[in-house]
Amino acid sequence: MSLLERIQEPADLKAVPEAELPALAEEIRAFLVDQVSRTGGHLGPNLGVVELTMAIHRVFDSPRDAIVFDTGHQSYVHKLLTGRQDFSGLRQQGGLSGYPSRAESAHDVVESSHASSSLSWAHGIAEGRRVRGEHDRHTVAVIGDGALTGGMAWEALNNIAAESDLPLVIVVNDNERSYAPTKGGLADHLATLRTTRGYEQFLDWGKVQLRRTPVVGGPMERALHGMKKGLKDVVAPQGMFEDLGLKYVGPVNGHDIPALEHALRKARSFGGPVLVHVITQKGRGYEHAVNDEADQFHGIGVINPETGLPIQIAGRSWTDEFSDAMVELGREREDIVAITAAMMIPVGLKGFADAYPDRIFDVGIAEQHAATMAAGLAYAGLHPVVAIYATFLNRAFDQLLMDCALHKAGVTFVLDRSGVTGPDGASHHGMWDMSIAGIVPGLHLAAPRDGQQVPVALRASIDIDDAPSIIRFPKGTVGDPIVAVRSVDGVDVLVEPDDGDVDVLIVGIGSMVATALAVADKLTAEGLRVRVADPVWALPVPSALTGLAGTARRVAVVEDGSVAGGIGSQVAYAVRQAGLDVPVDIFGLPREFLDHGSRGQVLEASGLTADAIVTSLRSRLA
Amino acid sequence: MSLLERIQEPADLKAVPEAELPALAEEIRAFLVDQVSRTGGHLGPNLGVVELTMAIHRVFDSPRDAIVFDTGHQSYVHKLLTGRQDFSGLRQQGGLSGYPSRAESAHDVVESSHASSSLSWAHGIAEGRRVRGEHDRHTVAVIGDGALTGGMAWEALNNIAAESDLPLVIVVNDNERSYAPTKGGLADHLATLRTTRGYEQFLDWGKVQLRRTPVVGGPMERALHGMKKGLKDVVAPQGMFEDLGLKYVGPVNGHDIPALEHALRKARSFGGPVLVHVITQKGRGYEHAVNDEADQFHGIGVINPETGLPIQIAGRSWTDEFSDAMVELGREREDIVAITAAMMIPVGLKGFADAYPDRIFDVGIAEQHAATMAAGLAYAGLHPVVAIYATFLNRAFDQLLMDCALHKAGVTFVLDRSGVTGPDGASHHGMWDMSIAGIVPGLHLAAPRDGQQVPVALRASIDIDDAPSIIRFPKGTVGDPIVAVRSVDGVDVLVEPDDGDVDVLIVGIGSMVATALAVADKLTAEGLRVRVADPVWALPVPSALTGLAGTARRVAVVEDGSVAGGIGSQVAYAVRQAGLDVPVDIFGLPREFLDHGSRGQVLEASGLTADAIVTSLRSRLA
Repeated sequence: MSLLERIQEPADLKAVPEAELPALAEEIRAFLVDQVSRTGGHLGPNLGVVELTMAIHRVFDSPRDAIVFDTGHQSYVHKLLTGRQDFSGLRQQGGLSGYPSRAESAHDVVESSHASSSLSWAHGIAEGRRVRGEHDRHTVAVIGDGALTGGMAWEALNNIAAESDLPLVIVVNDNERSYAPTKGGLADHLATLRTTRGYEQFLDWGKVQLRRTPVVGGPMERALHGMKKGLKDVVAPQGMFEDLGLKYVGPVNGHDIPALEHALRKARSFGGPVLVHVITQKGRGYEHAVNDEADQFHGIGVINPETGLPIQIAGRSWTDEFSDAMVELGREREDIVAITAAMMIPVGLKGFADAYPDRIFDVGIAEQHAATMAAGLAYAGLHPVVAIYATFLNRAFDQLLMDCALHKAGVTFVLDRSGVTGPDGASHHGMWDMSIAGIVPGLHLAAPRDGQQVPVALRASIDIDDAPSIIRFPKGTVGDPIVAVRSVDGVDVLVEPDDGDVDVLIVGIGSMVATALAVADKLTAEGLRVRVADPVWALPVPSALTGLAGTARRVAVVEDGSVAGGIGSQVAYAVRQAGLDVPVDIFGLPREFLDHGSRGQVLEASGLTADAIVTSLRSRLA
Repeated sequence: MSLLERIQEPADLKAVPEAELPALAEEIRAFLVDQVSRTGGHLGPNLGVVELTMAIHRVFDSPRDAIVFDTGHQSYVHKLLTGRQDFSGLRQQGGLSGYPSRAESAHDVVESSHASSSLSWAHGIAEGRRVRGEHDRHTVAVIGDGALTGGMAWEALNNIAAESDLPLVIVVNDNERSYAPTKGGLADHLATLRTTRGYEQFLDWGKVQLRRTPVVGGPMERALHGMKKGLKDVVAPQGMFEDLGLKYVGPVNGHDIPALEHALRKARSFGGPVLVHVITQKGRGYEHAVNDEADQFHGIGVINPETGLPIQIAGRSWTDEFSDAMVELGREREDIVAITAAMMIPVGLKGFADAYPDRIFDVGIAEQHAATMAAGLAYAGLHPVVAIYATFLNRAFDQLLMDCALHKAGVTFVLDRSGVTGPDGASHHGMWDMSIAGIVPGLHLAAPRDGQQVPVALRASIDIDDAPSIIRFPKGTVGDPIVAVRSVDGVDVLVEPDDGDVDVLIVGIGSMVATALAVADKLTAEGLRVRVADPVWALPVPSALTGLAGTARRVAVVEDGSVAGGIGSQVAYAVRQAGLDVPVDIFGLPREFLDHGSRGQVLEASGLTADAIVTSLRSRLA
């Protein structure tokens, strides 16, 4: 039985002799490389926190003490140490979640994949326990240096710092990266703190020197201790965290378990909020990850563990289409600038950044700032393109509404990973964007149905200079181009029996146009008269679409966003405002959080297959 | 002609001799007290920034240089100095906006009343001008110490600090308050910086001493200059802003125009981002404001300028109903805690705070943190009540969704100032909350129709421990109680001809129930059969409501939220899912930004009067 297999709960870990811990760490790393290379998942971040996670579980008492992981993709080691060692179904339907999951374990607290929230959670938990009189329960938040750039983290720091007796430990896992290298003033400041590592070593050296003399514990050591604060100000300015009122401990080598345990015990016994600055290496112990300059295998697909190379070569992705279009548009128009929130490569902006380095802004994990900065850039006469994952637009809803739309700012938001994303689970699905877009006055939204439509939509959005626009597309590879039969004032008609009235007008949105076509095939085969339309620009709802609705007995909108406030509900309202009583049926994602699984599995569970839609429409048309 | 009347643009101000500036400041203060006491508006904040605004306009060159006011209610002085001196219609339909307005002036940049956004705007504008090669145009952001507690401000600071050659000046207007006294680690830090005012004076004294000797400009002065940094670290630690990489200037007396101009010119010539720390007094020069302990006349109604007392005594407000209910519930249940985002008194939590000081949290202008901290408090076994203005929930949409709803946290959000608020304009109307609430899986929403329903709804929400809930009510005073004829599984029927089928089912939401009743009266008088229902809990849509829809030819939903994704669209979807084809008409606020005006004027402009709804329904029912 391996060391790892003997650990079913944190108590087992606490019983491991210190001398065996490095071997256990090696076992965990080997396990991670072996398992994650089979299933795909977040490899680099977890390889970086092996010793840190072990030390936390040895010093604290989970679940009595709450351990909150920010952006929980770094919780694999935590899972291994809390009784979950079957990684065979990781991120697959029915298998382990790629994030903490309360359904899996009482040791898991926060499930969301959205960054920068852990300090607010920890503050709430710690205050809650204080109110309940549970003064001996500690709260630990583990947050990356990248996540500290998010505004939520600041709001929490500002509050936590003022609570001098709250037993709350903030572990900053500083690997100098979020997805990509961390940027900004804070990153520079952390670098300054890192370079002062010599300070602790200097103190250690002093102690060693003193131990060699008979005055240990005597006035000389006390004098040295008394000099500590003065020395610290000279050798290692404590920096902004102590300015705010937070006790700072570190920097600590994040791969040295005794040093970690020492620092964490010190923090635990302090009696107030403490920030422990831990230096880790992303990808640690797996050379292919460490040597990967892009992101140290931040998130990977299935790979060959020997070579680190992907097993499956993907086709051309939606992101590729956007990426190429940006490079071309950037050449044509010098007023185009681009913004990424710490995800330059995944959102497809690397090509643009390489070609036009003066026109790219990486703002950190800071979607709020990205959206409002874009409004400012537009005010200055440029056209910004903000490229983020669809789910993260939620963080900038107020800024999209108040700073972009209210100020009629010509800003293009490009939302990658929209709709059902699959293995990352509930908080990664891009299923909310069309609902919030629908609220925003003046906003234009296009969901290209195929790869060829991506540059077309992007080009059109760049010309909209009096309102924000959104272009959204899913994760994965593009399918074959879908050609229109005809176009009515910008609305593409893809299928129709003739120009006459139909039983049902099916409106397909973006990548769901393919499903709409399959539904049309089946219903037509059953003798029904079906028209399929793609509004191309779904918001505002084109009047040509309501015109087409007037020639149908029913309208069905097929979309991979929430049924609540999505395009379907916008079409229904527009139809009613046009004086039509034709019923509009909405086929979208339910008002529920959707579990992880493959895209196909999630769509099927949501009733978004052609067969399920046909069954429903058949009965409604009967 | 007064000094003020001679100033029609900033150039006129620049021409005023320095000796006359104090008199001009006094004229401006007298003007503000006189005018704002007639119309109501934001008095205290503007009295505090008279000299600061004058100095900014004398040092910078607006509109060539962009001046961005955070939370623009402090822009009255700016308006006076940029050609807008008719305040007779302030905040009234057709009159001056209470915020900057691009339609009013080229000097106005940001119109929104949502705090903490100015630094992101300024960053975007400054970067935009750099990209365009307009290197000599400066950008100035004026932000309060309260607004710095918002996460957006942090995201921007982190980015700005890294741009060492950006001509951007951040003026921190530190009056130690947002609406209420500013809280948290940052406030403590600013206080530390304030107490180091002696430092600049010390340096000045040193220079004076040196000038009295023949070595001026010689090695002794240079030595003193060389000692500057060392001295600064001893006498005045520069603190977190310089840790981040931002040049810090101050603190400066915000009522000393020469000192302000000196500091701003220094900042202007620095060539990179500079933070100028200005100390001001809210309400300055008007004793009734200065002496007001609650908020120094932050925002007032019509008052008697001699006494500072309100002219109209308002009736019992919706806020009062909530406030009293919280005190009572707090006594009954020790697990109830409350959170405010820097607005303890306006949201009605002062009574609770006084009664249960250990169970109230003021998190600063930090709605994101408020929502996620609440999820943490719920995880720890408490039931938090987050009381904020409806429009500010937008800032916490992602946290409501991901931290509260995904984690099934029993958190109650109480949204004051929902619907049409009136004079504060587009960014203050609480017209988005029901749309975003509708997206959130599991969320419950109640809009009490009268004052008596507020404590009933609050009591019910406290018992919901597996999902977030929202209780929303408008600004202003409550009307008479509206009694139900009967209740069907929680849905209150308020009007009905009998138990049979009707021509129209009118669904009234919250304060619009009164309008729904007026519509019913008129239609009934025309011989139509009308039923009026109040769902009480509008989300999730009660099945009893769709049941009632099945007995009507049409359904009309009357709500004071956006038609996009609001309760109407949720009812329409629920009706369709129940297999009914009955048309659902939605009467709500249009997908537009609504101008300032009285509540009645805005509702009328939006077609939300009984007459307008009757006209529309009559033709649809024909």
